[in-house]
Order: sequence, then structure tokens, then C-alpha cells
Amino acid sequence: MSEIIHGGDVYRNKVNIDFSVSINPCGVPAKVKTALKDAIDSLEKYPDIRCEKLTKAAAKMLDVKEEQLVFGNGSSDLFMGIANAFKPSKVLIAAPSFYGYEYAFLPNAENIIYYFMKEEDDFGITDDFLNALTDDLDFVILANPNNPTGALIDDLLLIRILKTAKDKNIRVILDECFIEFTEGNHSLVKKIDEYPNLCIIRSFTKIFAIPGVRLGYLISSDLSFNEKVKKHLAEWNISAFGQAAGVACTECMDYVETSKNVIKEERDFLYDEFKRLDIKAYDSTCNFILIKDTRKLDEELLKREILLRNCSNFKGLDEGYYRIAVRTHEENRELVEALKNL
Amino acid sequence: MSEIIHGGDVYRNKVNIDFSVSINPCGVPAKVKTALKDAIDSLEKYPDIRCEKLTKAAAKMLDVKEEQLVFGNGSSDLFMGIANAFKPSKVLIAAPSFYGYEYAFLPNAENIIYYFMKEEDDFGITDDFLNALTDDLDFVILANPNNPTGALIDDLLLIRILKTAKDKNIRVILDECFIEFTEGNHSLVKKIDEYPNLCIIRSFTKIFAIPGVRLGYLISSDLSFNEKVKKHLAEWNISAFGQAAGVACTECMDYVETSKNVIKEERDFLYDEFKRLDIKAYDSTCNFILIKDTRKLDEELLKREILLRNCSNFKGLDEGYYRIAVRTHEENRELVEALKNL
Repeated sequence: MSEIIHGGDVYRNKVNIDFSVSINPCGVPAKVKTALKDAIDSLEKYPDIRCEKLTKAAAKMLDVKEEQLVFGNGSSDLFMGIANAFKPSKVLIAAPSFYGYEYAFLPNAENIIYYFMKEEDDFGITDDFLNALTDDLDFVILANPNNPTGALIDDLLLIRILKTAKDKNIRVILDECFIEFTEGNHSLVKKIDEYPNLCIIRSFTKIFAIPGVRLGYLISSDLSFNEKVKKHLAEWNISAFGQAAGVACTECMDYVETSKNVIKEERDFLYDEFKRLDIKAYDSTCNFILIKDTRKLDEELLKREILLRNCSNFKGLDEGYYRIAVRTHEENRELVEALKNL
Repeated sequence: MSEIIHGGDVYRNKVNIDFSVSINPCGVPAKVKTALKDAIDSLEKYPDIRCEKLTKAAAKMLDVKEEQLVFGNGSSDLFMGIANAFKPSKVLIAAPSFYGYEYAFLPNAENIIYYFMKEEDDFGITDDFLNALTDDLDFVILANPNNPTGALIDDLLLIRILKTAKDKNIRVILDECFIEFTEGNHSLVKKIDEYPNLCIIRSFTKIFAIPGVRLGYLISSDLSFNEKVKKHLAEWNISAFGQAAGVACTECMDYVETSKNVIKEERDFLYDEFKRLDIKAYDSTCNFILIKDTRKLDEELLKREILLRNCSNFKGLDEGYYRIAVRTHEENRELVEALKNL
């Protein structure tokens, strides 16, 4: 029942506007589309098994060493690769968060335990999380900003978490798939050399609006970790399209800035409207907003062909939470109109 | 050193004609290219996590039930998925054959053992293989036709292998990635219900000339096996391009027939020429030919920007074996000319 587990099931619902998946509303950069069109002419070649061009381009973009990168067929490929490679005995997941972590580790980990963030903390990570970092853990999975809240972890607290984890020999898998949407510099990419226990997961999917392509990457300074993950990923796991799109994306940094501004403006617009409509909305730093409402908003809006993400199947959330992507102004206005008319 | 492990390294060699990868020389069907071009317009959607359209189309094409199919990001994704899912204690690989089996099982299997096919049998499977099927095996991996020889296993012998394996509780992974190139009907797809211990691996890569896309599938009537493999594959592992191309491929059955005829004619042409050049060539039933020659053919031809597959790193083959793809007539003639001028 994948339509319950994830958003975006536009294949089995009649949908006009999809607010259930959190993709850059500015769409696919033209340069990326051109690169993909060009890639069609070279499909008869196997894609480069080493992703050489893409690796060089991404390493330059991130200012990391090439060997510190491993590419995946979407970040889900990397979560699965890590889980398959390490078959950990104990994994801690901060909840509520993306179901994909659980999906990858469920068939592979002996134990998955959850740290439940509290409603009174707006489902954010607090100092108390440090107490959850016990010696027996192999992995801790965190997202920054988190999904479905869009909340960033306090910079200093995140470093304390990393440090505690390092001392206790725990690897921190930090999902930064939405980090490009946030303002300021909250990424821990600059910290990978200092913390070899840190594995950052990033994606081209969200910020460049290409979930159809499948392209994610991990960044870690622990090369033996990287090698082991790679060995559990399929050969040629990055298609010709993935490699072409990825290279083009690294040349679209202006696009990231423009998108961020558009999204900030639209996020503010939605907050204002939610306030006016008396809908509780949690503070988000990125391209989606978690709201709370006692009505069956998803069912009501689907009648109007608007798809929301019902978050009741996020561990740690009850009924009544919905995640709403920040879309284009016109689409956001349609959403607001639909909410007004409920 | 992936250029040694696999053919097709056109990224790190100056190559004009690539005979090292075994792809349909007729190229990508126009219908598939169109479908891929169209897919560019819907990349902002996640690909269907259930591959519903593709599953329906492929099930119809193969006359199997939808639940008997699992799709992979290339067949290598499926080999890795199987290896990750089952962590078998003992796997038997018939050698020489595709390195990818070893790649997937090496980090996952406790033991890999090899059955070496003999030169005096033209590296083909004989009745003697039945003796290798011992009770302690979890998996047997065979390819039909085999790579790099292009030889089919005798139909009756293959059934005896399946039956013996079934009696001994051994799962047979049968790689049929090149079966569409062979004449007659040698596929075991019709036998999956009778033999739940049979898992067939197929691919769109070779026959439709789309290695850049990444799309393979497995066929098995053992639904719990399929489910377990699926659980070890990444979510959304089939890109929008893979799904679109796959559906279009199922509508290109005429193309398969035309290609087969072209390849047969060109294969015969190459055999005649190899005979004239006194180069030993093994009997192939598909789109590549294994030859034996004491000269450093690959190095010599690379000077002429022609890439061959040096097979010396295939387990069970020494120096002096080369695999040559059957290409277009013009390309094949260029190869023959180059060989004449050595």
C-alpha cells in the first residue's frame, strides 16, 4: 500500500495539483532538460561505471575529495546500500521523519529504536536527544531539516550530537536532502574530515525537481565505509540520464538561489493565509509546511483534485497532521481558496 | 579497475567502434526514443513506485502474472538484490561467465564455488554439471545463452538441471539477458510455475540497445522469494525513463525479429571471415562471438580505435580469448579489414 506510506501517488489518484511531494516548485532547470535530451543519443553505451565526470563536478561543487562521494540511484539506493552493507544490530531513528529510513533498515537491522520528538517542542530535536545516544547503537539517523516539519536542528546541538556519537563509536547518517532550500549555511559538509563517523546523504531530486531521474549521493571522509557501501550497490547504478542530469545540476547554482527566494516568499504567503484560516502551521525552513487540523483535509481536498500528504502514518504523529509543499503562487492560491471553501 | 572487469570502457579509451559490449547493433527503437523524450516532461513527479503500467505491459508480453515480475535498475540491481536478501552460504557459478554474478555475491555469500566448463566442450555445459549440484548449495547461477561463448545449454539438459536442483532445494538463477537474440524458443519462462526454484533474469538492455537507461527484471513463481528480493531493492528503483522505455519496448516485438535476422546474417559474415583469417571462433547463438588468437588483438586493434573485450579476466579463460560483438555490416567489415592488416 505504497500510497499510504509515501506522498505523490498521482498514479492512482485523480490529481490536478500535488502538494504531497516536496519538490522545487520552479521545476526542472532548462539546462538539465537539455542535458537529458542530449543523453538520449548515447543510450547505446553503458553509463560510465565510475561516474567520473559527475564525481568531478560534484566534488568541485561541494569542495570535497572525489573519493568522499558515493552516488546512488536516488538517496533511497544509498540508505538501502548502507543497510545491506552493515546489517547493524541497533539503529536509532528520530521520529517523526521520512519512512524511507525504516524501509531500508527494517529487513536488515536487528533492532530499530525510535526517539520520539515531542509536540511541545514542535517535533524538534532538543538537548535531551543526547541522552538517547547509548554505546550499543551502530547508527543514528537524523534529517536536517527534518521531514515532515521542515525544522533545522540547532547548529551547536548538532555538533554536540556528532561529537558524542564519535566518542561512542556511533555513525551518524544525516539526511540533508532539503538543505539547499534553507537560508544560511547549515550543512555539515565542511565537518566530514573532522567527523569520520558522519555520513551525509544528499539528493539532486528535491532542489532540481527531478525525482523521475533518481540521483542522490553520500559524503563521508571514512573511505572504508564508502567502499563497503559501494560494494553493496549495483554496478552501473547511475543511469546515463542520472549522470548527465547531475553534471548539469552542478552548473545551476544560480537556480538554487532564485528558487530559494521564490520559496521563501511563497512560504510566507502560506503562513499568512494559514494564520488567517486559523490553521496551526509549524515553523519550516524549507519547501514544505506541516499543519495541524482536525478536519479530514486530505480527503476533502482530493475531491477538488488537490493532493496533500496525510502524515498520520509518520511514526510519532497522530491523525490530523498534513504536510503541504510550497508550490507556485498560483497553485498556493488555489490551495488557500480550496481551504476557504471547505 | 573497472575497465579490466567489464567491456565498454569508452570513457577512458579512444574508441571509434566498440565491439566490447554486446548490444543490438540496430540501435534504440524509434518508439523507445520518443517515449524517453516524452518522459522528460514528467520528471517532476516521482516515478510510479509500483511500476504499474510497466508491470502490466511486461506481464502481457511474457504471458506471466504481474506478481511474478520484479523490476531492477538493470539486471545488476537484481543480482545484488538477491545476494543482499539471501546472504547465501554456498553459491555455484558456472564459469567462464559474466563477472557481475561474482560482483554481487562476493560481499554477501559465505562461499562461491565455480564449475569450470571445459575447452574441449567449447566451454559449454554438459551432463557432468549435474554432478556439481550438491545438497549444500543455495544458489546455482547459469546463463542461457552464456556470455562470453554465446552457447545455449541443451534444452533437455537444462530441464534435468532444474529438476535435480528442485529435488535438492537449490534455487537456479538463470540469466536470459541474451535469449531474445537466439533462434527458436529456448527461454524457460513457460516453466516458472512448474519450477518455483527457478528465477529467470532478463533485461531490456541488450535487445533494445538501452544500457544507458538501466532496466532489467526477474521472473519467478515463488512470490515469497520475489517479495524478499523487492524488500532489498531501493524504493523507486525504476526511474521515469526506465518505466517509459520499458513500456515502449514491449510494443517493439517486430523490432526484435528484424534485429535477429540482421544479426544472424552478420554473425555468418563474421564466421566466414574469421575462417578465412584462420581465427578460431566458437559457435554462438546470439550477438557476440568468442574467438581465440595468440596475438594481443585488443591492444593492436585499440591502436585503430576498435575496442574488443579481452576475456583473460573471465574465470576459466586464459590469455588469448576475445569477445566480439556482432555489429552493423559496415562496422564488421572495418573490423575484418583491421584484422587483415595486423
